[in-house]
Amino acid sequence: MSGKPLYIRNAAQLVTLKGPTGPRTRGEMEQLSIIQGGSVWVEAGRIRFVGTDEEVRRRLRSRIEEADEIDATGRLVTPGLVDPHTHLVFAGSREGEFEMRLKGATYMEIMKAGGGIHATTTATRQASREQIYEESQCRLDQFLRHGVTTLEAKSGYGLSLEQELKQLEVARDLNQDHPVEVVSTFMGAHAVPAAYRDRSDDFVDQVIREMIPEVARRKLAEFNDVFCERGVFTPDQSRRILEAGKEHGLAPKIHADEIEPYGGAELAAEVGAVSADHLLKASAEGIQAMAKKGVVAVLLPGTAFFLMAEMANGRNMVDAGVPVALSTDCNPGSSPTVSLPLIMNLACLHMGMTPAEVLTAATINAAYAINRGDELGSIEEGKQADLVLFDVPNYMGLQYHYGSNHAAVVVKGGRVVYRRD
Amino acid sequence: MSGKPLYIRNAAQLVTLKGPTGPRTRGEMEQLSIIQGGSVWVEAGRIRFVGTDEEVRRRLRSRIEEADEIDATGRLVTPGLVDPHTHLVFAGSREGEFEMRLKGATYMEIMKAGGGIHATTTATRQASREQIYEESQCRLDQFLRHGVTTLEAKSGYGLSLEQELKQLEVARDLNQDHPVEVVSTFMGAHAVPAAYRDRSDDFVDQVIREMIPEVARRKLAEFNDVFCERGVFTPDQSRRILEAGKEHGLAPKIHADEIEPYGGAELAAEVGAVSADHLLKASAEGIQAMAKKGVVAVLLPGTAFFLMAEMANGRNMVDAGVPVALSTDCNPGSSPTVSLPLIMNLACLHMGMTPAEVLTAATINAAYAINRGDELGSIEEGKQADLVLFDVPNYMGLQYHYGSNHAAVVVKGGRVVYRRD
Ligand SMILES: [Zn+2]
Ligand SMILES: [Zn+2]
Repeated sequence: MSGKPLYIRNAAQLVTLKGPTGPRTRGEMEQLSIIQGGSVWVEAGRIRFVGTDEEVRRRLRSRIEEADEIDATGRLVTPGLVDPHTHLVFAGSREGEFEMRLKGATYMEIMKAGGGIHATTTATRQASREQIYEESQCRLDQFLRHGVTTLEAKSGYGLSLEQELKQLEVARDLNQDHPVEVVSTFMGAHAVPAAYRDRSDDFVDQVIREMIPEVARRKLAEFNDVFCERGVFTPDQSRRILEAGKEHGLAPKIHADEIEPYGGAELAAEVGAVSADHLLKASAEGIQAMAKKGVVAVLLPGTAFFLMAEMANGRNMVDAGVPVALSTDCNPGSSPTVSLPLIMNLACLHMGMTPAEVLTAATINAAYAINRGDELGSIEEGKQADLVLFDVPNYMGLQYHYGSNHAAVVVKGGRVVYRRD
Repeated sequence: MSGKPLYIRNAAQLVTLKGPTGPRTRGEMEQLSIIQGGSVWVEAGRIRFVGTDEEVRRRLRSRIEEADEIDATGRLVTPGLVDPHTHLVFAGSREGEFEMRLKGATYMEIMKAGGGIHATTTATRQASREQIYEESQCRLDQFLRHGVTTLEAKSGYGLSLEQELKQLEVARDLNQDHPVEVVSTFMGAHAVPAAYRDRSDDFVDQVIREMIPEVARRKLAEFNDVFCERGVFTPDQSRRILEAGKEHGLAPKIHADEIEPYGGAELAAEVGAVSADHLLKASAEGIQAMAKKGVVAVLLPGTAFFLMAEMANGRNMVDAGVPVALSTDCNPGSSPTVSLPLIMNLACLHMGMTPAEVLTAATINAAYAINRGDELGSIEEGKQADLVLFDVPNYMGLQYHYGSNHAAVVVKGGRVVYRRD
């Protein structure tokens, strides 16, 4: 890192998202705290001063010359985007399965042809650590180009202690080596392995007794996630898994109510989950319970887009007082994308959220969805200096000029880590 | 242009789209003519030899050293993308109207607030030629980054002889100055100007007697287009306009059946239009008539996506034997995008077209939609050397890894005109 201060000057719109502590709900999601002609002064990786360019120049008059300067004239500047739900670390591709699906194959036909999550589990188990690292690093590079400075990454393609550790160690190494910050979630309960087909309780026991304690002991994850869905893990099994995680210091997350209402949203509130994700079929009671407890709803409209399904009702959730975040769900089966900007377009055009709400959902609320709200997600003095310069003059432009990646310069921890030109 | 030959070597997949003359229909749209490990030899802006890398090296052994080389190892190479329907040349933005629409405003409310097509007409009329040129050039730069090497651009925000000429002259200048080839369409009949509200026939007369002859005399357009829709121009008015264009050497195009079945597809077949565009509500008879006459259907799924409407039934049209092409419809009201790659994703995921069909639709069929099928749209010996290198290993990857722009290198007329890194 350069020892010099960084001076980002004169943004057409500097969207700071300065606001109340805690994830934003309802009308708060519309409050972007915009400074026209805004500038940011960064030192030692932290945001030191935010204001109009005039204010910054007055305050730092004697030191302007010593800084590295980035001209943001005509551009939008926002906090670095945060993706709070990815399955980043895996090997292989499932393009063949995608083609079968486009030609009308059913889920069962795809499974019989060797597709589905078990295809990725097999590929990831067989791949060397180096190969998984390389493929995941390539995805991380692409996330960065789209303005993402922090993302969450789940294990769950190992499904045995040894293989889950392998995935989590790759995530840890990527976090150390790559400019994008990688926050780890253990998700041993991503699927029931074939060997446990008719005795999923035995697998749950293994997750609880063997995997969670060891993952926690090695400090390889902050969160513990479970796929709570009929035919995968029941609400009771999910509760046991999430409670066990809590005992070992892993904060709960949950894949909830994607296919049918199954009590996932309710369970999230009950166990005090940091987030509940998917929620396409969440019940009204579940949504209310989440709102009451402040559980962040992580919505994944790309998955519905790619699976040609209906999207979650983001508008309803915002109106019900749930703090909403957005994510790519990056994974090789149901959402092979790295484009958080397109996810924002989908939420705006097809989930009824406003351009201001989707920006809140992809920055400060996404940061809260991974317990980083105090550190990331807004441009405020003292926070980590993660920012993106976009080639549009205002935040509306990100949605209006849909379908393009407008990220031009990305700053992570006060360092310029990507420049498009 | 460098006088050296250009040698693009060893693509993971070289999609040549070599095939029958004429726009591709039905099963032909699936035939991509792929060469694994394919290479292309380019001289004086033209494709001179296409084959496996071994074939190219054998054939040009003695000359390999003199060429500029681009390594396509691991990459997909396709013909340059062609966008056959844009309203590229205009001034201003309609973000405010977009925000009103997101908040539930009706079309009439937006019109009353000064929105709609007339807002762009006013802005374009008032703008200087230089300003329009600059704004349009910026869009053209972005098209290029998305792999587009040729696009069609319509006038139609002038609606008077003088102002239409201004727009067409900007398109001509851009075509001369910019690497992206701009093919011009006159569309004086884009809307009925406010001053002619209750006497649209008088405006039609003006288009026919005054505008078309002058545009043709100045050779400022190759095509003549009309917005045939209830409340805009009737099928009878549209027929008169298109026939008048034909008399002056302007090939007909038509905005047809976007809002309701209105006989637009039928009229396209009757007058021998090169393309009929939109077609969301085209009748079965109209589709049949188009298939019989070989009228290209230019489909614009981004417009439906952005307006939150249902998309045209691309699958049906392909199956009915209509040659289908795809386009952004780039315009400030209903589709402010430059991302032809996203349009392809939309057609694949939400119009029932296969990955192979959408690639055909955005290259060779799009070229035929602007009468350039003999010159562009496939990688064949003798054609103009327009190519794109994509950072995916095969054509399926463009759809599977949805939502991102994978274009890495763009070649127009044998010259490298864009490189991402
Ligand atoms: Zn997931
Ligand atoms: Zn149009």
